[in-house]
Amino acid sequence: MIKIALDGFGGDNSPHEIVKGAVQAVAKEEGFSIVITGDQEQIQTLLHEYGYMGNRISIYHTTEIIGCDEEPTLAIRRKKDSSLVKGLELLKKGECDGFISAGSTGAVLAGGIFIVGRMQGVKRPCLCPALPTVKGGTVLLADCGANVDCKVEYLEQFSALACGYAKAVNGVENPRVCLLSNGAEDEKGNDLIKEANSVMRGNPNFKGNIEARYILSGDCDVVVADGFNGNVALKSAEGTANAVFSLLSQEINSSIRAKLGAGLMLPALKRIKKRMDYTEHGGAAFLGVKKPMVKLHGSTKAKSVCAGILQVKSMIDGDLITLMEKELNKKQDA
Amino acid sequence: MIKIALDGFGGDNSPHEIVKGAVQAVAKEEGFSIVITGDQEQIQTLLHEYGYMGNRISIYHTTEIIGCDEEPTLAIRRKKDSSLVKGLELLKKGECDGFISAGSTGAVLAGGIFIVGRMQGVKRPCLCPALPTVKGGTVLLADCGANVDCKVEYLEQFSALACGYAKAVNGVENPRVCLLSNGAEDEKGNDLIKEANSVMRGNPNFKGNIEARYILSGDCDVVVADGFNGNVALKSAEGTANAVFSLLSQEINSSIRAKLGAGLMLPALKRIKKRMDYTEHGGAAFLGVKKPMVKLHGSTKAKSVCAGILQVKSMIDGDLITLMEKELNKKQDA
Repeated sequence: MIKIALDGFGGDNSPHEIVKGAVQAVAKEEGFSIVITGDQEQIQTLLHEYGYMGNRISIYHTTEIIGCDEEPTLAIRRKKDSSLVKGLELLKKGECDGFISAGSTGAVLAGGIFIVGRMQGVKRPCLCPALPTVKGGTVLLADCGANVDCKVEYLEQFSALACGYAKAVNGVENPRVCLLSNGAEDEKGNDLIKEANSVMRGNPNFKGNIEARYILSGDCDVVVADGFNGNVALKSAEGTANAVFSLLSQEINSSIRAKLGAGLMLPALKRIKKRMDYTEHGGAAFLGVKKPMVKLHGSTKAKSVCAGILQVKSMIDGDLITLMEKELNKKQDA
Repeated sequence: MIKIALDGFGGDNSPHEIVKGAVQAVAKEEGFSIVITGDQEQIQTLLHEYGYMGNRISIYHTTEIIGCDEEPTLAIRRKKDSSLVKGLELLKKGECDGFISAGSTGAVLAGGIFIVGRMQGVKRPCLCPALPTVKGGTVLLADCGANVDCKVEYLEQFSALACGYAKAVNGVENPRVCLLSNGAEDEKGNDLIKEANSVMRGNPNFKGNIEARYILSGDCDVVVADGFNGNVALKSAEGTANAVFSLLSQEINSSIRAKLGAGLMLPALKRIKKRMDYTEHGGAAFLGVKKPMVKLHGSTKAKSVCAGILQVKSMIDGDLITLMEKELNKKQDA
């Protein structure tokens, strides 16, 4: 049976929301079990509190926690008995098949690279969230922050890794890949993107450049960017969605008419907020390491912990690593 | 009296929305006149159609039009009798004090640099829109696309130019400047941003890095970015706002309850859409050339043409060029 390691002490709302999310996940789907890493007693108490009595959630006791302000590589090296390091070791040893954490992004990435290790030939693993599109599906954004300075070769690999994910998890047979640029024309872009565009034209999945305006349009399955730009695009989208909802609540509170209207529209508004909030649908896959790994938002709550666990399960079920290997080899064969 | 040159044949909705915007602008404010460049007869007919009988709008007859698909530098060189080139020549010769166009971005920028010329010491002029913040003011984003590959020195100049604009036009005495990065900490960023951060720390207006998520927060007056990243941030924000409004209309049409609510909320929703739509408030200033210039969105309508004309007027009234020179010299003195 599939076994997923869950970092019990990563993120702002750990361990309670983490444990709660685990309980929700096993109630929602069959066919897997969870090992939560962290303080045995606290996790046990929480499992009891959330009424969990089954045997699909176990605890792996650890004594240390890696904080968000710690230097990632040092923390990974020094805190050998942290919930994060132990979870990654379970993954490395094959005692678990996938791993998920809401802890420090830097530490999760460093741990993935140094403990779990990169897939053969992969230069730089990438962080790849799935964003909701207006057409109802999702679009993968690779990289959204793991690698701020990139070479063309890295971008090509991000494309291969994300295509593997699109096939394994999203069931997209022929992912449409675009490069994030400042215009759709091939000659648009900075030096990196212009070179990447000319190199990637040989890839049948490559559909050219895309402007940041159309990331959420649903016309593309994978958007490739260097980690700096991907991060800017992602955060700008988040900030704008927040700004719209903040203006909406200002407006609603400023007139009785708007208040009445908002009351009627509440279910619709909630559905929109939910659809736009990509953190509700799981986390960012960390692609290019040897085993399935997901990084959740630091402020994540039980619902997205649950979604993230099921996301890891579908990465395992879909044989993600094999499909990513195939995509990487295609590139090498070409 | 202030005289503003208006490119009558730039943009998707030219010349009718352009001429209409000019008529609205002179009706709205005193103290300036407009010269519209373009086909005399067509403009005359439109002025008549919009009921304009005054003497504050004149026409400068031209016979050519620069399209959006033309190579900018070539078009500027070859189409000497275009509405764009003639408008810029009026500006250069001092027959007008400011210029505005909704035409091809590349051609407007190339024309600004080659016809009007750069301010002394300026390496790369930048395109600088004012975006609405949730606190009600605006934030300047420099550069949003004129320079895709940048050096630290360019970023420093973007900061000086935008500070001059913030003082001259927005009345901000001490603009708070931030660098767009993938995290607020000084050590975050790609190589360019890390170096820029260390160099700009000596500038008392510099407040450190800002994540794209907080561009619209209102906590910052000027966000400095290379043109590629600035473009990604701007377009991602636009795309997300559009996505939210598109989901909103999907939801509204899917239930009677939501439809009723939306009817009541309509004035509020319209106000939000208007507040978020930065193109309603004018255009992007092109900073670093010798005279005030504004580039409007290609799909602009009369309302934003009117807003853009008044924006150029306030750039002239606020003595923008002198204030930008002061900011640039501060840097050189330091």
